[in-house]
Amino acid sequence: MMKFKPPKGTKDFLPEEMIKREYVIEKIKKIFSSYGFDPLETPIFEDWNLLTKKCGEDIKEQIYKFEDKAGRKLGLRFDLTVGMARVIANNPQLPKPFKRYFISKAWRYEDVSKGRKREFLQADVDVVGVKGMEAEAECLACAIDCLKSLGFKSLQILLNNRKILDGLLELTKIPLQKNLEVFRAIDKLNKLGEETVKEELEKINLEEKQIEKLFKLIKIKGKPEETLKKAKSLLKGIKTAEEGLKELEKIFELGKIYGFSDYLVLDLSLARGLDYYTGPIFEIAIKTKEKVGSIAGGGRYDKLIELMGGPSTPATGISLGIERIVEIMKSEQMFNLPKTKTKVFVANVNEKVKKEAIKIAQDLRRDGIECQVDLMGRNLTRQLEYADSLDIPFVIIIGPKELKEMKVKVRDMEKKSETEVKINELTGFLKNLS
Amino acid sequence: MMKFKPPKGTKDFLPEEMIKREYVIEKIKKIFSSYGFDPLETPIFEDWNLLTKKCGEDIKEQIYKFEDKAGRKLGLRFDLTVGMARVIANNPQLPKPFKRYFISKAWRYEDVSKGRKREFLQADVDVVGVKGMEAEAECLACAIDCLKSLGFKSLQILLNNRKILDGLLELTKIPLQKNLEVFRAIDKLNKLGEETVKEELEKINLEEKQIEKLFKLIKIKGKPEETLKKAKSLLKGIKTAEEGLKELEKIFELGKIYGFSDYLVLDLSLARGLDYYTGPIFEIAIKTKEKVGSIAGGGRYDKLIELMGGPSTPATGISLGIERIVEIMKSEQMFNLPKTKTKVFVANVNEKVKKEAIKIAQDLRRDGIECQVDLMGRNLTRQLEYADSLDIPFVIIIGPKELKEMKVKVRDMEKKSETEVKINELTGFLKNLS
Repeated sequence: MMKFKPPKGTKDFLPEEMIKREYVIEKIKKIFSSYGFDPLETPIFEDWNLLTKKCGEDIKEQIYKFEDKAGRKLGLRFDLTVGMARVIANNPQLPKPFKRYFISKAWRYEDVSKGRKREFLQADVDVVGVKGMEAEAECLACAIDCLKSLGFKSLQILLNNRKILDGLLELTKIPLQKNLEVFRAIDKLNKLGEETVKEELEKINLEEKQIEKLFKLIKIKGKPEETLKKAKSLLKGIKTAEEGLKELEKIFELGKIYGFSDYLVLDLSLARGLDYYTGPIFEIAIKTKEKVGSIAGGGRYDKLIELMGGPSTPATGISLGIERIVEIMKSEQMFNLPKTKTKVFVANVNEKVKKEAIKIAQDLRRDGIECQVDLMGRNLTRQLEYADSLDIPFVIIIGPKELKEMKVKVRDMEKKSETEVKINELTGFLKNLS
Repeated sequence: MMKFKPPKGTKDFLPEEMIKREYVIEKIKKIFSSYGFDPLETPIFEDWNLLTKKCGEDIKEQIYKFEDKAGRKLGLRFDLTVGMARVIANNPQLPKPFKRYFISKAWRYEDVSKGRKREFLQADVDVVGVKGMEAEAECLACAIDCLKSLGFKSLQILLNNRKILDGLLELTKIPLQKNLEVFRAIDKLNKLGEETVKEELEKINLEEKQIEKLFKLIKIKGKPEETLKKAKSLLKGIKTAEEGLKELEKIFELGKIYGFSDYLVLDLSLARGLDYYTGPIFEIAIKTKEKVGSIAGGGRYDKLIELMGGPSTPATGISLGIERIVEIMKSEQMFNLPKTKTKVFVANVNEKVKKEAIKIAQDLRRDGIECQVDLMGRNLTRQLEYADSLDIPFVIIIGPKELKEMKVKVRDMEKKSETEVKINELTGFLKNLS
């Protein structure tokens, strides 16, 4: 008989894995809410023309495209921002700032050989309606708090500004039409090194002199207190770049108040892939034993909502990549979670007391204690084996003798110890244990 | 400028609506966990051949179908069961019973004129590996507890068995190949009435006598204690039907122990749409001012996992229709929730104390209190207007005079009253309020 795998690039998540994912989601959701972000949800597919309005050619190629039965051209969303921007465009009445979060999936036809998934979970916050860098500060502070609450250390916020990148082109006299190609090349500096980036820039027909000048700038990387001054002097007179630097300075200042300034690293090679960015852009990187990897990214997109038919509305957001976060937390052994959410198995010593076992389980469930009962008419030994196979930490054993005294035995499966507990004191006893 | 709507049949959910949906999901998830169901997640799309293996023609027509870039034929899942069955088929090592929940979306190209959505949220639990009616009892008890915890009253569990339906055909000498057509017709008895069903049965060329006999049976509806006996005598000698009735009797017995027997209504006209059911089938109906509507449904599907290449594995599940549940709860005014999750707005009386406002907000956030600060350089009046427009219940007002005394004002936005609170006592004060 033929077996079916999950479609290429997707994965099934069994309970042990899901418990980890839900833990991460819950932690993040709590922090998102603490910053006053409220939930907003949009459909998983959108009008093809909407999706492709400002995503760039690379991403356009990655969208899962289809038609519904009426011939409407649709695509699966490639991020959580486009749908939200559409909602804002359609609902200008929403009070500003509008702060929303959305933790859900997006889909891109990625190269799976690089370990990338085609179905992936993201957690986004966005601040809509705020021109000033207060929006960036909230997004960054919130993202850092999320990651800290998950136990991450050695975090870095890489920071740049599309305005600075535009200024670089002006300074090096590279025509503006080449901007996306150039940005794509220099964005690879951290990952692929100088040589590769130089080769790519030569391919776009930049002159040696231009490349040299460009490198002097994009190699600027370090703490803002050291790098901002250097960048300022090199970009003096280039208005857009100066404006961009001033914005980053403001983020640095706000970072001191919010408490994330120590994580900030100015990196003039950071460009990010999406076409819709217009101002500050950022990535959060984490240093692990193996390498430095990006686990969050975002930026300002002041033109996107207008492009979707809404009023001109500034906006900034950040997206946490849950797939990578979970993978790193697994490989760095940052989880300490059970394999099941079930706390208690209510076992019966024989069929005659099964009824009482169910009733006790129903009472515990009503008290919020996660429990299971035997559903397969198994004997006690096999019931205990089942509880053990799932790593259920406690088993309540219901026997006729104890029942007469309104008691049960509670077995600690790890310690292999047993305690007699009065039935009407069970909930309290179990809540004390966990 | 052209505006884009959400694709036909889908909807955006603004925060006020999302807070309701998240409330429902959280309540349900808690009950699911209390019954020992663990989370399992599968991709939103599946192999086309997998999806269409046993869904029936009607649903096949409703699947969103597409190809990925490599030409793989895929479809959006039309329910949460098929993917789960595939996981079980691929992972025979999983201990049984395997109890899983999954709260997520599915997609069907439905007739939107009837108010149906093409993107809809479901909450499913399934018990895999259990032959006996204990599985049905767990699913039904769990679903009823979910609905009760949401405030639902006047619930009914409509109950039937595919085996009884097969028996009906045998008794009335209707050829077995016609079963799906006949089931589809009689399933409409509650919604469309006798006349319509009769007409449909005539269209399938049933004889008047057959129809008459059939009606005698499918009109059996009522409390199990009254109807089981009647059904038994009418179906005497028809083996499959007798087996089916015995199963329902067992569910009734277990219902008395679990505490859901009062909700049970035997309804021999209940057939349900999906082809994969093999045993008991059920729907939970709710009586509202306007009408009786189904808000949950499920049944036993003992053949599905084998059909997907797994070992022969019995399974039963129930699915709560979140879209309908939320709609009914809204129209019956069962929600009492705020418009925002933000509890506090930390306002500053002028730019000079903004820094302190942010710092106080950051401290509150770390204590788990949801709060916002001014991000737009607004004056106090406009900050209060913003808090008011979002229905944020409390505003902390930070002024230079109070700061010197390490105090702030806390304004209750509804009562329009103010209290002075020491800064280091703020968290405790606010937690007491909410």
